[in-house]
Amino acid sequence: MATKKSSKHKNHAERLAQEQKAISVSQFFERNRHLLGFDNPIKALSTTIKELVDNSLDACQEINILPELIIQIKQKGDKRFTVIVEDNGPGIVKEQIPKVFAKLLYGSKFSKMRQSRGQQGIGVSASVLYGQLTTGKSSKITSKIDPKKPAHFYELHIDVNHNEPEIVQEKEIEWTNKDHGIKVEIDLEGKYQKGRLSVDEYIKQTAISNPHATITYIPPDNKVVKYKKGTSELPKEPKEIKPHPYGIELGVLIRMLKITPSKTLLNFFTTSFSRVSAKTAKEICDKASIPLNTKPKKIDHQQADALFHSISKTKIMAPPTNCLSPIGEDVLIRGLKKEINAEFYSATTRPPTVYRGMPFQIECAFAYGGDLKGDELIKLMRFANRVPLQYMQSACAIFKSAQQTAWKNYGLSQSRGALPTAPMVAMIHIASVWVPFTSESKEAIAHYPEIVKEIKLALQECGRKLGVYLRRKKKAAEVERKKSYIVKYIPHMGEALKEILELSEKDSLEIQKLLKQKLESPKENK
Amino acid sequence: MATKKSSKHKNHAERLAQEQKAISVSQFFERNRHLLGFDNPIKALSTTIKELVDNSLDACQEINILPELIIQIKQKGDKRFTVIVEDNGPGIVKEQIPKVFAKLLYGSKFSKMRQSRGQQGIGVSASVLYGQLTTGKSSKITSKIDPKKPAHFYELHIDVNHNEPEIVQEKEIEWTNKDHGIKVEIDLEGKYQKGRLSVDEYIKQTAISNPHATITYIPPDNKVVKYKKGTSELPKEPKEIKPHPYGIELGVLIRMLKITPSKTLLNFFTTSFSRVSAKTAKEICDKASIPLNTKPKKIDHQQADALFHSISKTKIMAPPTNCLSPIGEDVLIRGLKKEINAEFYSATTRPPTVYRGMPFQIECAFAYGGDLKGDELIKLMRFANRVPLQYMQSACAIFKSAQQTAWKNYGLSQSRGALPTAPMVAMIHIASVWVPFTSESKEAIAHYPEIVKEIKLALQECGRKLGVYLRRKKKAAEVERKKSYIVKYIPHMGEALKEILELSEKDSLEIQKLLKQKLESPKENK
Repeated sequence: MATKKSSKHKNHAERLAQEQKAISVSQFFERNRHLLGFDNPIKALSTTIKELVDNSLDACQEINILPELIIQIKQKGDKRFTVIVEDNGPGIVKEQIPKVFAKLLYGSKFSKMRQSRGQQGIGVSASVLYGQLTTGKSSKITSKIDPKKPAHFYELHIDVNHNEPEIVQEKEIEWTNKDHGIKVEIDLEGKYQKGRLSVDEYIKQTAISNPHATITYIPPDNKVVKYKKGTSELPKEPKEIKPHPYGIELGVLIRMLKITPSKTLLNFFTTSFSRVSAKTAKEICDKASIPLNTKPKKIDHQQADALFHSISKTKIMAPPTNCLSPIGEDVLIRGLKKEINAEFYSATTRPPTVYRGMPFQIECAFAYGGDLKGDELIKLMRFANRVPLQYMQSACAIFKSAQQTAWKNYGLSQSRGALPTAPMVAMIHIASVWVPFTSESKEAIAHYPEIVKEIKLALQECGRKLGVYLRRKKKAAEVERKKSYIVKYIPHMGEALKEILELSEKDSLEIQKLLKQKLESPKENK
Repeated sequence: MATKKSSKHKNHAERLAQEQKAISVSQFFERNRHLLGFDNPIKALSTTIKELVDNSLDACQEINILPELIIQIKQKGDKRFTVIVEDNGPGIVKEQIPKVFAKLLYGSKFSKMRQSRGQQGIGVSASVLYGQLTTGKSSKITSKIDPKKPAHFYELHIDVNHNEPEIVQEKEIEWTNKDHGIKVEIDLEGKYQKGRLSVDEYIKQTAISNPHATITYIPPDNKVVKYKKGTSELPKEPKEIKPHPYGIELGVLIRMLKITPSKTLLNFFTTSFSRVSAKTAKEICDKASIPLNTKPKKIDHQQADALFHSISKTKIMAPPTNCLSPIGEDVLIRGLKKEINAEFYSATTRPPTVYRGMPFQIECAFAYGGDLKGDELIKLMRFANRVPLQYMQSACAIFKSAQQTAWKNYGLSQSRGALPTAPMVAMIHIASVWVPFTSESKEAIAHYPEIVKEIKLALQECGRKLGVYLRRKKKAAEVERKKSYIVKYIPHMGEALKEILELSEKDSLEIQKLLKQKLESPKENK
């Protein structure tokens, strides 16, 4: 019996072994596509356009060129669409095109410590995957990298089981009137609608946060919308930086020690990290009681642990912030003015700061009054590295910060725990080398205390400017009201003065005229 | 100038090409570990234990054995812990151990259409990854698959850049007093705390939803908690099923047509899907105007699209539901009774039903009164395939359904849009071949309308039973109150009767006694 039982169990372990196998990341995300923002047809259409536009804007930034984008949505059937996005970026060399567009987790931005819209190397290929899943169609990519050479055209499909590209067709084609750039066409199942969560709104907000871009948008009804650029000034080019010691985890430190070409800890620390001088390196090693000239490869686990702890006990300068490219107060206001007709604008760019060793920077701009409606909650426009965030507002650190701001101080009415009610749009931008999103679909920013604090400070700064304006406006309205009262009584005063002083009718009218003049130029009175 | 400009751009495309590279799924999740439930030290500890326990319970289910688990948390330093989980499952053959524990996206459950706790092949290796990231330590695995042979011991590390296991140490060891099973030890950074989101609570709830399991739990303070099994009945073994046509997307259908060994569409449809008879297959093909004996490999895109649409227009029987293993009403109540001392229990197991071609089944059980506190919102205990869900309650379909139930109908008080206030625990279980979680960290269930509807029906069924009980209880209290009034007046009545009927003192007392007796046996009165 015992033998039978044991052999049965062994068979189980062996049977199970045959079923164990690797799952490709494409299979994983095909099954879990809601994790990437493809939950439903409306969001799927919007996510696809977002991923393509983000990539185009990043590409133009790479070569410091003013972006010119053409975005088209063609309705092909009840729920079928073709999305086409074309840019004037550098293009992609033909050997790389299949992997960039038809392999998940492939890209150039993942390990760079520099601000960019994309970060994971998933977005565009996920759109290709979703298109193929819902329509069975492959995606079409045209790339031109040199004005004197023809463009290269690909039709691509993803081999889901292996997460590798399959080339359906490939050829050289002529792409006239184009020096360089990329054009992507994806067929997908989607739903087009208007409103707060629409593609229209996403593109409008993108134009606001990228006023240096020219965007031509052709929605399904073919009513072309042209967003002209509001500035010819290119955004400051963000620099790549090295990791800051405060943001490193023990496991990563051990890995770095193992693979570094450095021969000494001194060299390792000063060349692998930002803000570590020879003096700081010595301090770290001294605190861990390890000689500065030890070979990094010789550091054992216990010593690595000691170094890790001494880093947190050493005072190290905050990371450099030239890796960030904020929009800037002037450009923010120009962007808002272009799209929203308001009576008052203000903007703030906070100084850069750091969360978990990662530099970030918060900006904020308000548009108040004018065409905006007064009896609604203020509208938040959230941006991360210039990309509009449309979904999951209530899960976002920006929403939380706006909720927790005491708006009454700035003259707005606010119910407890809610956004204030006012004719206002508040735009908030976080720029960072690594934006901590709550999910891969990049819809909401995680509640890091440092980030929430900075957003609140930015809102307060703009709020104070708004408060000054609103108080002045209220005072002016008050003065106007008082003036209108007095004006009403001037004829009576004229009559009374006429009687008391025994004036002629003409003198009385003269006095009334003088009184009115005085009233209308209040400054001369002072 | 033109030449210079063009060559500059070509250089850009080529420079970018050099930076483009594949990102391993380990690198991706190391950077985005909050996506897998490792956001903070408290959750990291709880997630690690959850992943290990889920796997152990699944393993025991594979061989139909009553699970005996030992779960230990050892505190090693301020924020350092060692987690040890040991089971009596079949064990894992030694060749598979490195990949199962040190390669993300590797497992046996991903493509099986059958109810299990794990589904992705990520959880356990993610815990190993997190442990290595935060402590630099490798994880230790002991596996025994045969009582007559020694066990196999591994110390494993993940090569993050390639998402492949690295074997640090490997040897045969003796594991006495054990026929077969697995023991896993992971060092990690964490935080141990008590309360609603604690590991203690997770294990308690696991014991409730798995009353056939024996669990020995040794928390950091070494105060051992022993959960004895409440039943020796094994859960019904869930069967593997084929996909249902209603749950298939066009892209997947095309892929299946390409790789099927079937020679005809008739054979393809009847063997690749569940619930497709020859008659149904004919109906699908007829509607698409494609002959039933066409070779699947010859089906072009347009034909596949036609088949896809005709599937949705064909009436097909709901999928079989023997792939599900509900807990059952009796066992649910037994589980609750074991851990909660209440005055009233009720349970409901709904019939299985389907969302997007996936079978699922809802169960619900209430414990009311007794030791439970009355002035608080009811406590929801959420379970998916017997796994307790602790985080993100407000994002979960279970919470939404409970909020939208009209609890006043069942005698509970409820503010608008809130859970009811009552001394009650409501346990809700969803069993499915594929639970649609809102994120990989598997904390909340997506709001599919079919699922929300079924949960509400289950809550209403239990609610009606509770309503009957509460009304009866109220009535009994009412009768008791009236009785106590009358009892109060019996001596006066005795006096009055004595005077009117001129009774002796003895007779008066006798009558009082009789009246009391009548009152105390109300049933005889009728």
